[in-house]
Amino acid sequence: MLKLPTSLERVINEFGKLPGIGPKTAQRLGFYLLKKDSIDINGLSDAVRALKTDITFCGQCHNMAETDPCSICSDSSRDQSIICVVEEPLDAIALDKTGQFKGLFHILGGVLNPMEGIGPDQLNISSLQKRITDVGAKEIIIATNPTLEGETTAMHIAKFLNGTDVKVTRIARGLPMGGDLEYADEITLSRALDGRREY
Amino acid sequence: MLKLPTSLERVINEFGKLPGIGPKTAQRLGFYLLKKDSIDINGLSDAVRALKTDITFCGQCHNMAETDPCSICSDSSRDQSIICVVEEPLDAIALDKTGQFKGLFHILGGVLNPMEGIGPDQLNISSLQKRITDVGAKEIIIATNPTLEGETTAMHIAKFLNGTDVKVTRIARGLPMGGDLEYADEITLSRALDGRREY
Repeated sequence: MLKLPTSLERVINEFGKLPGIGPKTAQRLGFYLLKKDSIDINGLSDAVRALKTDITFCGQCHNMAETDPCSICSDSSRDQSIICVVEEPLDAIALDKTGQFKGLFHILGGVLNPMEGIGPDQLNISSLQKRITDVGAKEIIIATNPTLEGETTAMHIAKFLNGTDVKVTRIARGLPMGGDLEYADEITLSRALDGRREY
Repeated sequence: MLKLPTSLERVINEFGKLPGIGPKTAQRLGFYLLKKDSIDINGLSDAVRALKTDITFCGQCHNMAETDPCSICSDSSRDQSIICVVEEPLDAIALDKTGQFKGLFHILGGVLNPMEGIGPDQLNISSLQKRITDVGAKEIIIATNPTLEGETTAMHIAKFLNGTDVKVTRIARGLPMGGDLEYADEITLSRALDGRREY
């Protein structure tokens, strides 16, 4: 019986464990690498291995970073009075890219999801309280995604900070730029109406 | 400016080089690995690295293997009088899986494709001649894919073996099992008609 060599099977198996990569794609990747030279193969191998050793997490904002505290938290030129709470590191990068937000970030590390066993204790929520006191924040912008879980998490944080003298805000929900009223869902439209502003 | 850590950027960059993996998928894979523990990460890293060191190619059939000659070529119980010529190792595995073919294989390593600079010299065609003499083959089944390039390659090999006393055959083209006449293309249909057999 003709079979694939064990080491190729192993690579295909490892690729198949990654999210969104099915058996056929994993096989294609394995064969692709087989045709590549050692430099490319070792490049991928080394990069993957370095991932765990070279990345740390900032003890203040919980963002991944190369130093602790991270470059944002240790940057005194940023506005310490405002903290933007996001789900994941990429959300912080997206907001930072706008160039409009000059405050600090706080990474939750996910959203509340009881079905998957993720409660408030699994997220970086309790440390937010201490951080507000430490940096003397005046406003917390909750910028979790406008999904069911994101909204639930936002509500939980707002409730959690209730009673402190910090102002809690939520990013605006409405029609995205280039959006089309005709194809927008009811919730988005009603949020867009609720959040209307005077010209 | 908030940026991803260098080692994460590097992994994303390496994944992005793989075929069919765009920047977004590469990013998703990078973040996925970041959340995994060292065992999983090193598993992938080691598997990729071992690929180049553990796999060799059979000097006779050009299939990848762990030994040279490979398990098929060194198996004297297989029918040495018939050689099946395929494009890639996976094609040989697919044919072998049917259990119907008990002969030898010969892997071309691709198809003729002048646009990509792949001519007869880039494929394992010339070694086929020597092999036919060596094993005393009586029949060569050309089992390249029924695509434009596959057909061209098949024709080239048939012409190349013209004049030798070996019988050259081509696998049947026609409607696949479970296929539908209504949706079959004209070429498949005319091939199915051409290849009709008496009941």
